[in-house]
Amino acid sequence: MSKPLILITNDDGVFSKGISELIKLARPLGEILVVAPDKARSGQSSALTVTRPLLYDDIQVEDGLRIISCTGTPADCVKLAFSQQLPDVERVPDLVLSGINHGSNSSINVIYSGTMGAAIEGALHRAPSIGLSLCDHSDDADFSQALPHFRHIVERVLAWSLPQGVCLNVNAPVGEIKGIKVCRQAPGLWSNEFMKTLTPFDKHCFWLTGSFSNEEPGAVDTDEWALGEGLISVQPVQTDLTDYNLLKTLTF
Amino acid sequence: MSKPLILITNDDGVFSKGISELIKLARPLGEILVVAPDKARSGQSSALTVTRPLLYDDIQVEDGLRIISCTGTPADCVKLAFSQQLPDVERVPDLVLSGINHGSNSSINVIYSGTMGAAIEGALHRAPSIGLSLCDHSDDADFSQALPHFRHIVERVLAWSLPQGVCLNVNAPVGEIKGIKVCRQAPGLWSNEFMKTLTPFDKHCFWLTGSFSNEEPGAVDTDEWALGEGLISVQPVQTDLTDYNLLKTLTF
Repeated sequence: MSKPLILITNDDGVFSKGISELIKLARPLGEILVVAPDKARSGQSSALTVTRPLLYDDIQVEDGLRIISCTGTPADCVKLAFSQQLPDVERVPDLVLSGINHGSNSSINVIYSGTMGAAIEGALHRAPSIGLSLCDHSDDADFSQALPHFRHIVERVLAWSLPQGVCLNVNAPVGEIKGIKVCRQAPGLWSNEFMKTLTPFDKHCFWLTGSFSNEEPGAVDTDEWALGEGLISVQPVQTDLTDYNLLKTLTF
Repeated sequence: MSKPLILITNDDGVFSKGISELIKLARPLGEILVVAPDKARSGQSSALTVTRPLLYDDIQVEDGLRIISCTGTPADCVKLAFSQQLPDVERVPDLVLSGINHGSNSSINVIYSGTMGAAIEGALHRAPSIGLSLCDHSDDADFSQALPHFRHIVERVLAWSLPQGVCLNVNAPVGEIKGIKVCRQAPGLWSNEFMKTLTPFDKHCFWLTGSFSNEEPGAVDTDEWALGEGLISVQPVQTDLTDYNLLKTLTF
């Protein structure tokens, strides 16, 4: 049996430390195809490039590893890898790994995350898909404590697969890791979302920033709780956004 | 009691026909604040602008109506409207309306939709929020048959509100409308997603395109089914992406 084809992408760009660490992690587990953005594309959610064509460059090609830089968003990169239109990409990926993101994608941040946009895109293409993040934004974040746990999760998903249309949102706390916890998404709220400044022409302009709050701080089954306890959070994420509770009662 | 403040945005840009029709629809129902992208931002999902500041311009200000053009994404526009940092915007919106989109946002297209990214952002800010779309991409689409039904839905949501964290994805078919159906999201698949061409420098480039297929064509409770029957589909959309079925059984 041939080795699985593992697609790796991210939203911090193909030259970030997090994706290098993920490539090293995955290398022994299969044949690696990297298609990742040529620059940082944080906060891109499931955005697609619709008004321009995508371009790509081969960055590195060696036995069992090919690294491609792409001008698109994380979700574009996944679509392109599954399109079977890239030269010498002859099969569709068996597994999609996105990350390792520099920064948390827990709680409602899953909605804005380009890392998770790529994992969701993998799930929409019927492949088991995992977004991996470390709660440290710095360019030189230390992934060493998270890596053995991430590898355990990736190996289990390779062995088990995942139900169709579901992917995983995996977040690791910084520092010592005490275990892995399967969690629901904490309800959260961003406030004070902009820093207001003036342009040289005396116009107001607004830089995105903000303060995050966990809206259920007492709950002990959420991703935010797990991360606060030194646990890696694993949220199963669905691509069917229907609210089935409201579906039962809503009428017009 | 003061009139409700209704925020209107879209992803086709502030000068599109669909948003003009929505402003006309909403005008008798409250005070209208429009904060919408200065150009088309289709396929932007819940993307945010993180590396540049947002700028805005007042396009029109009159009694009960203010129209602001913004350099951001649909979700950025909603954040800015809720920020209470825009001059002379003294309260947060009571209702968010996004659209009317030129083109369908049914099935998995809800995931890529900037129209729905804005509605989801409204729900994250605790406001009842509705994304409205017509299944006609043309710039001069005819919204006339859908408008009375859209108005009915908006009035009901204004009267009832919606549960916290849930918004509505409303899609109308073209032509005669036979009613309104509350639906789940049809599972769908995009294939043949790129047109491959050559640049003048003989590099491959890829334009997003594709063929959509409904993966449950026999089901009679999905949005795709409803639209095919001449019904307006109303999907309740949740902002908690947790898959609660898998949550029960997944362990690591």
